[in-house]
Amino acid sequence: MTVQIVAVLGTGVVGTHEPVITADDLGLTRGDGIFDATRVLTDADGHSVVEHLDRHLMRLARSAQAMELPAPDVDGIAALVAEALAAWTTPGEAALKIVHTRGLEHAATLKASTLLTITETEPGLRRPLAVATLARGYASDTFADAPWLLGGAKLLSYAVHTSARREAARRGADDALFVSSDGYALEAPTSSLLWVVDGAVRTTPTGATGILGSVTVEILKEWARDEGVRFESALIRPADLYAVSGAWLASSVRGVCPITTLDGAALPTSEVWTDRLASAAGF
Amino acid sequence: MTVQIVAVLGTGVVGTHEPVITADDLGLTRGDGIFDATRVLTDADGHSVVEHLDRHLMRLARSAQAMELPAPDVDGIAALVAEALAAWTTPGEAALKIVHTRGLEHAATLKASTLLTITETEPGLRRPLAVATLARGYASDTFADAPWLLGGAKLLSYAVHTSARREAARRGADDALFVSSDGYALEAPTSSLLWVVDGAVRTTPTGATGILGSVTVEILKEWARDEGVRFESALIRPADLYAVSGAWLASSVRGVCPITTLDGAALPTSEVWTDRLASAAGF
Repeated sequence: MTVQIVAVLGTGVVGTHEPVITADDLGLTRGDGIFDATRVLTDADGHSVVEHLDRHLMRLARSAQAMELPAPDVDGIAALVAEALAAWTTPGEAALKIVHTRGLEHAATLKASTLLTITETEPGLRRPLAVATLARGYASDTFADAPWLLGGAKLLSYAVHTSARREAARRGADDALFVSSDGYALEAPTSSLLWVVDGAVRTTPTGATGILGSVTVEILKEWARDEGVRFESALIRPADLYAVSGAWLASSVRGVCPITTLDGAALPTSEVWTDRLASAAGF
Repeated sequence: MTVQIVAVLGTGVVGTHEPVITADDLGLTRGDGIFDATRVLTDADGHSVVEHLDRHLMRLARSAQAMELPAPDVDGIAALVAEALAAWTTPGEAALKIVHTRGLEHAATLKASTLLTITETEPGLRRPLAVATLARGYASDTFADAPWLLGGAKLLSYAVHTSARREAARRGADDALFVSSDGYALEAPTSSLLWVVDGAVRTTPTGATGILGSVTVEILKEWARDEGVRFESALIRPADLYAVSGAWLASSVRGVCPITTLDGAALPTSEVWTDRLASAAGF
């Protein structure tokens, strides 16, 4: 069994298998809540650090705003993270996940539930990837004038994301790449798409596409500015990915992993760019 | 505060505010689970009956199959419902909701969590409705060849549904009516659309549309067959709803409620058809 610790805002660290959510919580009954996740590194002596917590808490606050949730108590969460990190001593990598729900549906006051988990990372997470394209069902401009579709928010309503990963596995792939109904690559269920063409790093645009703003992309953008590397937002058709210098899926927990095959056919790879991007993102 | 009872499969009735779900349950962290809901009627002596439980358990099993979840233990759930009904004595109407999740993400065995709530129904639920149309972002044939998009399954991932209801309220409406990107009315966030035209009852088709198969529609279909009333599946553009004999939103808890205005403009209503359909559906 994977090692995990659980902490609840207002309570602190609790037992891993202790129930913490009631049956009436909208986070459970409607997926009506948000989350964010990042990497925890623990040294041989059991000292843990969390990466980019401020950026992830800022994104959590942006997700809350998109969902019209009460703003999460970021200071309280940061203190809870510190308490949990002090209790987390398993050397190696782990994932910190923060969950923030709308709270009880039928209570007198709608009090949000906020909790976090730190979970040991599965071995071999950072590896070259076979990827399968899957229709997402939305056009690339669907979210432009429809804020109620909650584009760009990191929602607890992720059933389609997990279902897409099962379908990708069925196709012999490690992960899925969502494609819009008008034929553009969007993002993976829990990662962003990056590619390099003509010496420029590109990623798919947020906004009208509904794509989640990636913290890893944000960090790479700042690195590119400092290094004088071109960094651009663009749409791309999956067929055009076969003609780039390299393509990657990136996330705060997984790092920057090269896509080696797309729908079973080899993609160009670049060890130089893989090393450069992974190291720039801190992996 | 609304009266509610909670029961957990394998445990029985528990305290309403007792936490029952752990932080690692995929039903919470990914909205990776399903639910179903129906009406409970309780007489003045506190005796309760649940409506159409078998049909709702069958739909729960169909949702589980679409989600590739382990089949829910329908006999165990039925026994749990009986235990909960015996404990539910609040006269009037209530909603029974059954929740079935994929279970813990990081446990050695992925054991589903199955629980139910019985919650007093809010007064005035059954009333004429002002409805606002809202884009759903999908075309009416999006789900035809994309089972990973989980069309027709009653998912815990319902954040967009609750968000659409908030947007409808902001527009001064009681509920939302989702419209496909190719311009067809689909369904409401938690109700089906019915309308009458030329003496025939119509509803929007399941399947490629991703629309959830409605138990109330199933009952009305059987009534129509017995009564010799034409009952048809068809797509309709919202603009064409202004020219029908009447239109309704229907669900197992809400019953059959006439839509009186759509986007602020009056729709034709028919008291005769409202009475007929509501009574046929048992309301």
